[in-house]
Amino acid sequence: MPYRSPVADFSYVLNNVVDFEQVLQSEKFAEADGDMVSAILTEAGRLCDDVIAPLNRGGDLEGARLENGVVRTSPGYADAFSAIAEGGWVSISGDPHYGGMGLPMTVAAAVNDMMSGACIALQLNPLLTQGQIEALEHHASDELKDLYLPKLMSGEWTGTMNLTEPHAGSDVGALRSKAEPNGDGTYAVSGQKIYITWGDGDFINNVCHLVLARLPDGKPGTKGISLFMVPKYLPDDNGNPGEANSLRVVSLEHKMGIHGSPTAVMEFDGAKGWLVGEKHGGMAAMFTMMNNARLMVGVQGVGVAEAAYQKALDYAMERKQGRTPVGDGDGAIIDHADVRRMLAEMRSEVFAARAIALSCAVAIDMGNATGDKDWIARGAFLTPIAKAFGSETGMKVSEMGVQIHGGMGFIEETGAAQFSRDVRITAIYEGTNGIQSMDLVARKLMDGGDAACAILEEIERHAEAARAKQPRMAEAVWNARENLCEATEWMLNQKDLNERFAGSVPYLMAWGRVLGAHFHLKAACAEEGNGPRTKLARFYINRLLPDHASNLAYAMAGAEDVYALSAKDLSA
Amino acid sequence: MPYRSPVADFSYVLNNVVDFEQVLQSEKFAEADGDMVSAILTEAGRLCDDVIAPLNRGGDLEGARLENGVVRTSPGYADAFSAIAEGGWVSISGDPHYGGMGLPMTVAAAVNDMMSGACIALQLNPLLTQGQIEALEHHASDELKDLYLPKLMSGEWTGTMNLTEPHAGSDVGALRSKAEPNGDGTYAVSGQKIYITWGDGDFINNVCHLVLARLPDGKPGTKGISLFMVPKYLPDDNGNPGEANSLRVVSLEHKMGIHGSPTAVMEFDGAKGWLVGEKHGGMAAMFTMMNNARLMVGVQGVGVAEAAYQKALDYAMERKQGRTPVGDGDGAIIDHADVRRMLAEMRSEVFAARAIALSCAVAIDMGNATGDKDWIARGAFLTPIAKAFGSETGMKVSEMGVQIHGGMGFIEETGAAQFSRDVRITAIYEGTNGIQSMDLVARKLMDGGDAACAILEEIERHAEAARAKQPRMAEAVWNARENLCEATEWMLNQKDLNERFAGSVPYLMAWGRVLGAHFHLKAACAEEGNGPRTKLARFYINRLLPDHASNLAYAMAGAEDVYALSAKDLSA
Repeated sequence: MPYRSPVADFSYVLNNVVDFEQVLQSEKFAEADGDMVSAILTEAGRLCDDVIAPLNRGGDLEGARLENGVVRTSPGYADAFSAIAEGGWVSISGDPHYGGMGLPMTVAAAVNDMMSGACIALQLNPLLTQGQIEALEHHASDELKDLYLPKLMSGEWTGTMNLTEPHAGSDVGALRSKAEPNGDGTYAVSGQKIYITWGDGDFINNVCHLVLARLPDGKPGTKGISLFMVPKYLPDDNGNPGEANSLRVVSLEHKMGIHGSPTAVMEFDGAKGWLVGEKHGGMAAMFTMMNNARLMVGVQGVGVAEAAYQKALDYAMERKQGRTPVGDGDGAIIDHADVRRMLAEMRSEVFAARAIALSCAVAIDMGNATGDKDWIARGAFLTPIAKAFGSETGMKVSEMGVQIHGGMGFIEETGAAQFSRDVRITAIYEGTNGIQSMDLVARKLMDGGDAACAILEEIERHAEAARAKQPRMAEAVWNARENLCEATEWMLNQKDLNERFAGSVPYLMAWGRVLGAHFHLKAACAEEGNGPRTKLARFYINRLLPDHASNLAYAMAGAEDVYALSAKDLSA
Repeated sequence: MPYRSPVADFSYVLNNVVDFEQVLQSEKFAEADGDMVSAILTEAGRLCDDVIAPLNRGGDLEGARLENGVVRTSPGYADAFSAIAEGGWVSISGDPHYGGMGLPMTVAAAVNDMMSGACIALQLNPLLTQGQIEALEHHASDELKDLYLPKLMSGEWTGTMNLTEPHAGSDVGALRSKAEPNGDGTYAVSGQKIYITWGDGDFINNVCHLVLARLPDGKPGTKGISLFMVPKYLPDDNGNPGEANSLRVVSLEHKMGIHGSPTAVMEFDGAKGWLVGEKHGGMAAMFTMMNNARLMVGVQGVGVAEAAYQKALDYAMERKQGRTPVGDGDGAIIDHADVRRMLAEMRSEVFAARAIALSCAVAIDMGNATGDKDWIARGAFLTPIAKAFGSETGMKVSEMGVQIHGGMGFIEETGAAQFSRDVRITAIYEGTNGIQSMDLVARKLMDGGDAACAILEEIERHAEAARAKQPRMAEAVWNARENLCEATEWMLNQKDLNERFAGSVPYLMAWGRVLGAHFHLKAACAEEGNGPRTKLARFYINRLLPDHASNLAYAMAGAEDVYALSAKDLSA
């Protein structure tokens, strides 16, 4: 069976698990209501199922390629992108003043989830544009906004982000790209950038590059970096693409996955650019773009995991192999305990990661809607968790999907392996999951643990309330939260950040696990009787939640043992 | 830096961790001694480093392909295979009477580890032949042995195993291939087989297919299956390849990895075959071949993990990015706590999986050398653990290797992704890791837990003895063993096998973890002072060992929650 967007799942999570109603009740989103959101998700789901998903395998086989300076895109991508643009799906949460739908980020997250499950390589194109739209909304001059935002929101033009250079990856501050004032208010931008997602494409009228570069008086490090809008074609007096700018795609990378997404090496050779935001304030603007991109990368992991789950489920319900005395799968391999266990694990992981991502989106929406610093802090706290846990879930679930297919899983025609290869990048880009974890234990605990504690208290309150209906599950969640509190205390007590960093990844994974259990419990409590969501919650809380404890033991082991192993010890 | 075989690591593990001396002291292996083994490993390591490893990337880029019925192999494979054959590396543990080296399986495992790290796709060729040699040694008539074994051992001919059919994968008993007596003692074998590793290759003089098929009077299921030797070319009166047999390669699969290894769909159309072993006793013969193949697949996982670790380590010691106040890595990313943590985790996992595989090989050798049923049972018990834990380690470590490379890891030219794609198959073939786990909790506990308890007692004894030198680590291992004992009791008490199967994978993983900690502790105790092996053991026992507890909670959760989730619940 082909991919089908899990629209009903979104409705359940939005209505019963992540308190989305409050977003719709806010003044900012007064024009939206539940029925409208539901209709929008249904419509987006139809596009994903009917138009986008059928292109996924072809894009893997015939990836983007560079021919005489032109980036040829995969079969069908041009038409599908037109459909995405025409449906308004590039700018779900964009400002209506410039043509956006003005809907909550949460809705955009749900749509991105579905679209990633359908075809992550194509979905990256509107995703990058969405990030650029946000950065411009927050930081660009009115002139730039008026010129660029309508075209970006309509999908006429697309956006990229140009951070990385060969010697400046996670360490953005080491970048060498330069910007010289032209004297007319514009700048000449020069340098080489790598890993530029959708750096170009044959169906795109104009590619708008946001480029980080250093002005002549820019200090070394991140504080001397400015952000520039550098379009492929310079807009003419009517705002249409005019003269070609001095930039080009040097090459495209050969990647493990997302072959349909052209990953470019870009060369800027005195290209004309316009400053976005303050001089030397480029990192702030870039972070606006990157923060929501981080959430959306987590969402990509969830979407691919969903697709991998669906494929494995279909296979498990069709493939007959061996016999088992139990089960309702008509003798297909789903009746084998280990296969059904894997399917249950996959599904429960997808649910958990999805709920975490959507709860993060709700917090961001509430922050935007109310300006309340607690909501803003919560969104910021949940972002690295949503990114890393979502992408790890994508990798884990797609790998289990391969496993359920047995030998077929390793054969590319099956399509299971593609999910595993495609989703691998989500743990790396927009800041590796290691970087996310460092962000969590350092910057996101700089408030003394306020944001963390607020969430932990909410988990506690809900667990207390849930005792009446689901005493055993509530007790397990309550205890896990207690362990996570202690580990958070431990983190806060480490003045040497390296002590935190040596365990930051398992700490983040424990957060994902405990949050996942919390949301499963909420889903179960919202259900009548012992329904499928309650059973799934029980599976998750009984079987997967316990690993939070081993992750926390790892998290609190400190840095000494790690550095005790010298580089020489590790090389011997 | 290119791959370098970890010869010193083998020496340490063999001498200090897995009690290999007793194998050399046995009468069967009286002609071997430690110096000889050491020289052999050094020589094999040189071949792997200098001749085989340089071909690994080319085989990924230019995989095997079928051209007009001929399987064209990857660049350089023909010469490298000649070097393998000429060095005698196909038949390390083969019977000297037929030209084998007659060395312990443990030595073969170490060589296969190194050769998999160098190039798993090529190494699969001699690996399959080794399995066939063993099956023939145990089950074939003297006539077949005299004809085939010398040619297989010398590498003139190679061997394959033909089990799987489109509708008979894990459920071998469902196969449909037929064998009709020709009346002259030979049989006409017909059927289609899939996933035939190295089903053919342009540098191979003759491919010897061991084929499972059903005789006319064969019952349905596994008890009606017989095994046949079906060579590509029928040997003439002088034992040289003569007339072509009625078989052909229909196609080669497009796979996620191991592109250099031709995975064939084979068609047998009344091909002439000779019975191997008893009529209807094919499964027993095939299991001989498969059991050691299972251990060796675990070894493949370890070998690829080693190579992935080395590559990541080299990168982490060269790549400069960001700053950290500590570490001895000269400002390279190895100085970041999270990167060093990953490297330590990778290395400690490789050590654990390697020690488990080699201890399994030692048990098999001792079983062969002494005929002692306890040794035989121990080898049988450890085999599924070595296979599944070794392959999971391969996947985990190669994935961490990609992660350490950041964006570079996703770019195929780097080579890190290839390890991840190549090693993925090891969790699937020779019985998926799910099948291994079912084997562990069902067949391997049919002795009432004797084999399991013997190992657990040994762990206990060693932990007691280790208290003097390493009290904290010894206590942790002692406790973990206690938990594993309890879980084993729980498994034994489940009369309904599905109760065991619903948690068999985490149960197996916990075994791997506890055994890994035990061997780390042994390595630490054998070392003077606080050396690198002690520090690595401390890392593993502090940080990774705790997850045995969550895996055991999962293992003992039973089948009820799993089957409570109906097929419909999982599809909703």
